[in-house]
Amino acid sequence: MIMKALIKEFEHILGKNNVFQDETDRATYSYDAAVLDSALPSLVLRPTSSETLGRVVGLCNEQALPLTVRGAGTNLSGGTIPQAGGVVVLTNALNRIIEINEEDLYAVVEPGVVTASFAAAVEARGLFYPPDPGSQAVSTLGGNVAENAGGLRGLRYGVTRDYVLGFQFFDVNGELVKTGARTVKCVTGYNLGGLLVGSEGTLGIFDQITLKLIPMPPARKALMAIFNDINKASETVAAIIAHRIVPVTLEFMDNFTIRAVEDFSRAGLPVDAAALLLIEVDGHPHQVEEEAAKVEALCRQMGARHIRVAKDAAERDKVWEARRAALSALSRIKPTTVLEDATVPRSKIPAMIRSIEEIAKEFNVTIGTFGHAGDGNLHPTILTDRRNQEEWERVEKAIDAIFDRALALGGTLSGEHGIGLAKSRFLEKETNRATILYSRRIKAALDPKNILNPGKIIGD
Amino acid sequence: MIMKALIKEFEHILGKNNVFQDETDRATYSYDAAVLDSALPSLVLRPTSSETLGRVVGLCNEQALPLTVRGAGTNLSGGTIPQAGGVVVLTNALNRIIEINEEDLYAVVEPGVVTASFAAAVEARGLFYPPDPGSQAVSTLGGNVAENAGGLRGLRYGVTRDYVLGFQFFDVNGELVKTGARTVKCVTGYNLGGLLVGSEGTLGIFDQITLKLIPMPPARKALMAIFNDINKASETVAAIIAHRIVPVTLEFMDNFTIRAVEDFSRAGLPVDAAALLLIEVDGHPHQVEEEAAKVEALCRQMGARHIRVAKDAAERDKVWEARRAALSALSRIKPTTVLEDATVPRSKIPAMIRSIEEIAKEFNVTIGTFGHAGDGNLHPTILTDRRNQEEWERVEKAIDAIFDRALALGGTLSGEHGIGLAKSRFLEKETNRATILYSRRIKAALDPKNILNPGKIIGD
Repeated sequence: MIMKALIKEFEHILGKNNVFQDETDRATYSYDAAVLDSALPSLVLRPTSSETLGRVVGLCNEQALPLTVRGAGTNLSGGTIPQAGGVVVLTNALNRIIEINEEDLYAVVEPGVVTASFAAAVEARGLFYPPDPGSQAVSTLGGNVAENAGGLRGLRYGVTRDYVLGFQFFDVNGELVKTGARTVKCVTGYNLGGLLVGSEGTLGIFDQITLKLIPMPPARKALMAIFNDINKASETVAAIIAHRIVPVTLEFMDNFTIRAVEDFSRAGLPVDAAALLLIEVDGHPHQVEEEAAKVEALCRQMGARHIRVAKDAAERDKVWEARRAALSALSRIKPTTVLEDATVPRSKIPAMIRSIEEIAKEFNVTIGTFGHAGDGNLHPTILTDRRNQEEWERVEKAIDAIFDRALALGGTLSGEHGIGLAKSRFLEKETNRATILYSRRIKAALDPKNILNPGKIIGD
Repeated sequence: MIMKALIKEFEHILGKNNVFQDETDRATYSYDAAVLDSALPSLVLRPTSSETLGRVVGLCNEQALPLTVRGAGTNLSGGTIPQAGGVVVLTNALNRIIEINEEDLYAVVEPGVVTASFAAAVEARGLFYPPDPGSQAVSTLGGNVAENAGGLRGLRYGVTRDYVLGFQFFDVNGELVKTGARTVKCVTGYNLGGLLVGSEGTLGIFDQITLKLIPMPPARKALMAIFNDINKASETVAAIIAHRIVPVTLEFMDNFTIRAVEDFSRAGLPVDAAALLLIEVDGHPHQVEEEAAKVEALCRQMGARHIRVAKDAAERDKVWEARRAALSALSRIKPTTVLEDATVPRSKIPAMIRSIEEIAKEFNVTIGTFGHAGDGNLHPTILTDRRNQEEWERVEKAIDAIFDRALALGGTLSGEHGIGLAKSRFLEKETNRATILYSRRIKAALDPKNILNPGKIIGD
């Protein structure tokens, strides 16, 4: 329980209407999109300025009060669950786009800016901010950076990390740290921005983020390749890259997912197909035509039964909306949806997809698989009911088996969803003890009282 | 002085012929390409395997012996000067390209692989590793990563940091730490690779580096725009980007540099020009033609007196060789060459170039300016004689003034040469006390005896 005097002090700093004590308010921020137990914070705070954000951080540290920052809470690994209690700090009032610089191709933003709003503001200037996590319509840039969010365009354009040029963040004492620059080249001091990206709120609290922008590619073209054989679809993924074509997006969807999505979105997906590839190329108009033709020929050669080319932007957008609805569509089917995030080198996608099918059979669980096949990032999605203890145990075993298989294929535990609480116990499987100790030495040095989102990513 | 017993132990680990004690050997590794006092190491070690590298690191830590890793020593900021004595560890025997994976577009290398050899090996497979620091013919990939090296292609393709996917490195105890993956997406644990890039050998010793590769662009075209007015040349830089063209390279050379280079290389540069822009575009053949035509038109419109388009690869290569010779050419003129590295947002290039001219006049020093104007990274190069105390003092004042001006224009102290010893005292000018303390807390936690390249980047 937080002392009355401390609450008064937070109210003094933030104003009464930005300090929330009611149980309903606190319950709202006790969970995120991960399938994990919720945890009630003692207090929810909503700073409305950089200066008060810094004071809140400093005060929490002084009082050894756990502090979990929260953007939109779309996190899929429990990174925003305040498991140690303490305060949840909301960033939604820190949502200014401070600058979009067209000459120098960068933007400066506060952490609470919504990803899709930012992308739209940038696009209105003819510029492009590529990272597009599935939750972009509500997720915040601060959350994206804290989780190093990926998305559909990772194959060609990389992930959030690749767009962070600079940072101002508060260290645990509430002191402002500055790193990086407004230029692509900067080697002044340690690359603290590199460390902070994906650190899940455990090493500092973002104040301002400088993001790299690029010119908007002048043309794009999307097509859908329909397969009767799931193996042929997965083998086509590697074949495209082997032919030196790097599409913007190269998405895979299995039959289970196709049916769920079609049932939900009525986008006209072929419900009898064993698998789909959704492919978009972009760039110079000539290049786009050439690459689309090559991709189409390759898909046919690899055994696609049919290829649909989007006639116009409306048709293209409809397909992408359907794809983006995959998680929502699947999560309607059963009470509990476990969205996994195993990632393998792309040439191992056929083996990984086969393994997921085998694992589903072995543990008798329902798995719909879709994802960013082009960058090896699959989302096998387990549909279950967590209240069914016997089934849940099988689900947990299936998850373990998926991780083991991804690692055996030279992959990684998490491509884009983070480690959070959900996977910290698996971390040593992929790395080793020395890596965890090295990471914990950093954490202990930068947050000696362990107040910044304790227990996340590297465990306790 | 290192005790005899310890030397015996190093000899036992590495073999006698990989432990160097002679003063001539030690003197060879007492300096690098920076204009700074040299410092003699007590011992030079040359591990020939990953395993012995780890043992050497562990033993140095046990004995609290300073350890400076050295690739080719092409470093321009004193990062490889063993200022605290101790041992220099050479990576030149750890030079295997372990894997080039064409399907999954990555390579795994040891730190001692020479940059240009690697780029050639990759190119032979139709792939592309873009970072091309000026010293690439001799520099090592380990050195490039430790310094986050840039180069001519930063504008379009980014810097070394943008190509590091994963790492194995030895922590100060000689324990192997693993981070990152062979996939573009990986959020398993802290982004330790991000922290290690550019850390100048102060946080760990690289064992293996996983680098991202991309397909080789099918076409490229280079042109030279010749200006009678330096301001018009510098204003053209921003105009090109403002027209949403991002060339691979957009290099600037002032008259002083043109004359020095022509004198050295006889490449046919116009010695009467006030300034040159050297521009290369790449990509799909149609795009290349279109962009080259747009760039040419823009240069004319901005006042170029003449534009030369390279007729073929040989002519193109000749111009780039001449450009790459700029530092060598300038350094012949006077005994001491101070190559600076001020970087500003590209729209500030005209102001920065004007300021450099003013500073040269104010302090009565000779400055030749060239560099990667497209990404705002200029190399004002001061030609002097360090033995002339009075002149040297003016040079130091001019350097200070260049830094102050770059920062005032929203830039950074160092774009690609690192902080090393040369600039650590300036670090606080750009960042602040909290940033330096944050960085030192990391260093102290990961290297408690301060043996890993002590005194570099964040000072002591």
